Amino acid sequence: MTYEFWYWNGIPGRGEFVRLALEAGGIPYRECAREPGVQASDLVADMTADRDSPPFAPPYLVAGDMTISQTANILLFLGERHGLAPADLAGRLWINQIQLTIADMVAEAHDVHHPIASGLYYDEQKAEALRRAGDFRGQRMPKFLGYFERVLARRGDWIGGGDRWTYADLSLYHLVDGLLYAFPRRMATLARDYPGVMALHARVGGLPELRAYLASGRRLPWGDGIFRHYRELDAG
Amino acid sequence: MTYEFWYWNGIPGRGEFVRLALEAGGIPYRECAREPGVQASDLVADMTADRDSPPFAPPYLVAGDMTISQTANILLFLGERHGLAPADLAGRLWINQIQLTIADMVAEAHDVHHPIASGLYYDEQKAEALRRAGDFRGQRMPKFLGYFERVLARRGDWIGGGDRWTYADLSLYHLVDGLLYAFPRRMATLARDYPGVMALHARVGGLPELRAYLASGRRLPWGDGIFRHYRELDAG
Repeated sequence: MTYEFWYWNGIPGRGEFVRLALEAGGIPYRECAREPGVQASDLVADMTADRDSPPFAPPYLVAGDMTISQTANILLFLGERHGLAPADLAGRLWINQIQLTIADMVAEAHDVHHPIASGLYYDEQKAEALRRAGDFRGQRMPKFLGYFERVLARRGDWIGGGDRWTYADLSLYHLVDGLLYAFPRRMATLARDYPGVMALHARVGGLPELRAYLASGRRLPWGDGIFRHYRELDAG
Repeated sequence: MTYEFWYWNGIPGRGEFVRLALEAGGIPYRECAREPGVQASDLVADMTADRDSPPFAPPYLVAGDMTISQTANILLFLGERHGLAPADLAGRLWINQIQLTIADMVAEAHDVHHPIASGLYYDEQKAEALRRAGDFRGQRMPKFLGYFERVLARRGDWIGGGDRWTYADLSLYHLVDGLLYAFPRRMATLARDYPGVMALHARVGGLPELRAYLASGRRLPWGDGIFRHYRELDAG
């Protein structure tokens, strides 16, 4: 089955967590919103169509007669069906737990530049963003990264343990990649303290399964999405 | 098996979503942090103990040799093991999807009173909270509640369809209950537009399975947790 995958065009966003799993897993999919002639309004029309399990927001995946949304939920599905996570109960729940913790940090990284309202421009909430960025750099980044470091120290090369990546490893790669883009000075300082996390980032970035994708135009560049680089929000 | 359940004492918090599932499901558990003589430091010590699947934060559930954290992940586990969600793939993913959407709104409701940093007092971020509250009341509450209304219009009495509640119904009850506490004036206005959501709230609140719990001292009152009532953050 070729899945139909929907996410806003132009930014990696939360859709990229799903794309990495599809690509690394060698799973056929259509990137519907980036096909010729498709507009953002077509995505909205598809998303709000009458169906059993409507999405609240993109990303979502159409798999036959199922529509599956929420990033972690899509990955739970792909992980089970395509062997991108351990098959046993404990392993499956563990990978979902890490994915949800990654999602929490992603939401906080977004709110650094949009602490008041996602519907307002950054310039309309810049004063608040400066305050929130200080807390994120000082408190939240070490707390989350320290947790992932501890996880990898316990589990080894991959979050699930064993000798193969899971979708949570791909997601942690993307999270760290986003942090390196948005907070290069802060990450230069923190990298010393979290060598396991940085090694995971390098390891996933070098996966043969991802080589063609990462070199392709399908891997969208960072920009005005969840992770944004504003010089004034970063500091060592 | 009697589960060991851990959450900060004194507030309903995210732990309450798990408690409602345990209570309505008639599932035996120990509320570890509320047992005599247990301190907050004991929770921290237990949470940071060396184990295969350490939690990032409470709530977490110890089930034999598994430790399961992240609210939606705990509910996924309980739902599967105790029949608190449909057993088929589509139904299981659907209930998880709704739970994750509820979790997103819960996080936003928290950030209304803590838009800058969870480690600072409300009074230290009151100006920013006033701005964020306006957006939450005006944009986000109708967006989320409208989505849940649409879901119930499609599915009927219960989110999963069919004639029995799922854990997502219990969670939506708790979310609406928190909103009624935190934003009574705004909810009085919105209730007219979302009769299905309000009926679900009443329906779960009247479940025989929850009667004893809701009347007991174990159901902690609202206070300084995720949902807080500050008069200045509410408006019709």
